[in-house]
Amino acid sequence: MALINDHYLKLAAGYLFPEIGRRVKSYADRNPDAKLIRLGIGDVVLPIGESIRAAMHRAIDELGAEATFKGYGPDQGYDFLRDAIAEHEYKARGAAVSPDEIFVSDGSKCDSGNIQEIFAQNARVAVPDPVYPVYVDTNVMAGRSGPAGPDGKYAGIVYLPCTEKNGFKPAPPDEPVDFVYLCFPNNPTGAAATKADLERWVSWAKQHDAVLLYDSAYEGYICDSSLPHSIYEIDGAREVALEFRSYSKLAGFTGLRCGFVVVPKEVVGKDAKGNAVSLHRLWGRRQSTKFNGASYPIQVGAAACYSDAGRREVRANIDYYMENARLIRTGIAEAGLKVFGGENAPYAWIATPKGVGSWDMFDRLLNEAHVVCTPGAGFGACGEGYLRLSAFGKRDQVEEAVARVRKTLGGKT
Amino acid sequence: MALINDHYLKLAAGYLFPEIGRRVKSYADRNPDAKLIRLGIGDVVLPIGESIRAAMHRAIDELGAEATFKGYGPDQGYDFLRDAIAEHEYKARGAAVSPDEIFVSDGSKCDSGNIQEIFAQNARVAVPDPVYPVYVDTNVMAGRSGPAGPDGKYAGIVYLPCTEKNGFKPAPPDEPVDFVYLCFPNNPTGAAATKADLERWVSWAKQHDAVLLYDSAYEGYICDSSLPHSIYEIDGAREVALEFRSYSKLAGFTGLRCGFVVVPKEVVGKDAKGNAVSLHRLWGRRQSTKFNGASYPIQVGAAACYSDAGRREVRANIDYYMENARLIRTGIAEAGLKVFGGENAPYAWIATPKGVGSWDMFDRLLNEAHVVCTPGAGFGACGEGYLRLSAFGKRDQVEEAVARVRKTLGGKT
Repeated sequence: MALINDHYLKLAAGYLFPEIGRRVKSYADRNPDAKLIRLGIGDVVLPIGESIRAAMHRAIDELGAEATFKGYGPDQGYDFLRDAIAEHEYKARGAAVSPDEIFVSDGSKCDSGNIQEIFAQNARVAVPDPVYPVYVDTNVMAGRSGPAGPDGKYAGIVYLPCTEKNGFKPAPPDEPVDFVYLCFPNNPTGAAATKADLERWVSWAKQHDAVLLYDSAYEGYICDSSLPHSIYEIDGAREVALEFRSYSKLAGFTGLRCGFVVVPKEVVGKDAKGNAVSLHRLWGRRQSTKFNGASYPIQVGAAACYSDAGRREVRANIDYYMENARLIRTGIAEAGLKVFGGENAPYAWIATPKGVGSWDMFDRLLNEAHVVCTPGAGFGACGEGYLRLSAFGKRDQVEEAVARVRKTLGGKT
Repeated sequence: MALINDHYLKLAAGYLFPEIGRRVKSYADRNPDAKLIRLGIGDVVLPIGESIRAAMHRAIDELGAEATFKGYGPDQGYDFLRDAIAEHEYKARGAAVSPDEIFVSDGSKCDSGNIQEIFAQNARVAVPDPVYPVYVDTNVMAGRSGPAGPDGKYAGIVYLPCTEKNGFKPAPPDEPVDFVYLCFPNNPTGAAATKADLERWVSWAKQHDAVLLYDSAYEGYICDSSLPHSIYEIDGAREVALEFRSYSKLAGFTGLRCGFVVVPKEVVGKDAKGNAVSLHRLWGRRQSTKFNGASYPIQVGAAACYSDAGRREVRANIDYYMENARLIRTGIAEAGLKVFGGENAPYAWIATPKGVGSWDMFDRLLNEAHVVCTPGAGFGACGEGYLRLSAFGKRDQVEEAVARVRKTLGGKT
């Protein structure tokens, strides 16, 4: 028989969200009348705005006429989109990113899962804890870890605890690592980084020859105008950081699929002989070999998010979700639980009642309140004792969910 | 500095098609008046049919209303598409594939590039020569080879020569390998496999505990009704073969992006301890961790290819291209060159004049005929002495290209 990739067998359990899906399905099958409210998987619910849809309609019409038909696009994305990103996401914020440093993709899950391929198998990885599982699992699958311990932590991976004490913002590792995943505004904790936070990371990365993989998929949810949206707002970041962005949460593209990675030309790694190698070159080669570009109509839709009308549509949806976040924050806090996040991120990070574990609380909210949350423990050992509630829901559902959770918790917290 | 993946540095040159692009751009920049005809990269040119576009328009409209909005879809594809594939691509041909064995993706380049991840790093790989470069390059990048030799072949990879003598259909390797890539109808040679050919491979794979990675992205171009479209038309293939399909060439989706892989539940590999492991389980885990599903409107468009109107639209475009293929085959043969393929595939595989290398012939056709072909040597050592002409062009362009090539070759062959 063909030899399989044994590293896959180290994966501790099913990927988090399918596991939630299984538990919810099992409950729903047994209780078909239960009116479940899903604030677990962070998926958007509001329609795509009219001007963005109109742009995609036009793109599909183009594919219907010989003169405007488009086949394979550039692997790295169309210039119209890369130019728009450079202008609106970076130049407008005083950050210098050139269009050819932007690699358009079919979404951030692919990008943040694939990026590890350009690093050595024996490279050392650091991740925050709790963390978006994709960062960890893809490194385990690539053989950068040993087996998982009883606490779910994989040998060889460096975990950076995010706790109430450090404001859920990890400190740089005190041992050498090659690359570090960071995510701000954070999934799952909702913590947002200040300029000072990022300056500390950039300075540390320079000093320790590490690369930062900066996931800012939720930057659109930042409300505090003093906070940076991009790591390239920090001096020196172009030498040490890659940045991941997505239209999924920004513009409701979870079903449409579009994102991008920025790889500045200054960032280098080293080969086994110690020679510097451009990560821009490596990622370009990776993408041109394994990827054939994002769908054309979807790229047109992404670019339409930067028109005046598109920006208004995107903004209106984000504002709606952030009002949901406020209702969750205040409602759950009034029920007596400690709530974090939800101010510059669409996620509220909630401490479970003392002595109640994450999955127990997940099951309790599912069974008693008919509310689906995400158990913090699913994001890592330091997530134990927390749960994540997503602000991606219809207003009446969010209000109802908050009311039910409060009722369920009544007197028991 | 962070340790990079040194295996990338073994890659002999740029990926083939970007290299062609660079040469063409350089020529076009120097000769802005040259009217280039591109029959190099195999990209479709005909518009997407009306009924398929109408389906995608409806899907985009759905995303504009709360009641029909769709966010994240199932990682493995929507049931409506998986059911249609199982029915129309398999059951209709007497092949048994269940919908949950079908993994919908954003295209075959990703799938055929990513599939190697589920095998061990020390697994042995066999590829035909010449070959679609993605199969080779992705294994090199994963560390399954040594460096490239002067002939472009990578140490450790088993090459299966495809020559005029064996009808460009490779024989199974005579040394042990874990998995083998096969592609019929073939890119680049245009060779098509008979049932007997595939029976031989399935039988060999069973006997030698190998897995077949069967790429049938061009099955829609088969004109000879005795030829199999799927490897699952062969008894026993469900135990040893995975199959790759694409809407790119079938339905002109190169810019839209959709494809799928079939992983039957019977196919197993073994872990380092010799235990059997389901490849269906491994690929499912790979996809759920690193992929978030293909774009919803594009999946709707793919499913529309199976409606009566959709089938007519798809068929009409394929018939058009196959008439191009006939013109290329007959025209080039009349110019005195040996032509292969082009009867059940959109590619003609043409022997260059004696003593003229592939890239020299590429440059000559570019410079003198202003026709862009693909040099056979770009597909592997056994491709030297050949070039590929693609039937994906407008009729008048194909006619003009054939006339120009004939003129360029006049008297010199």
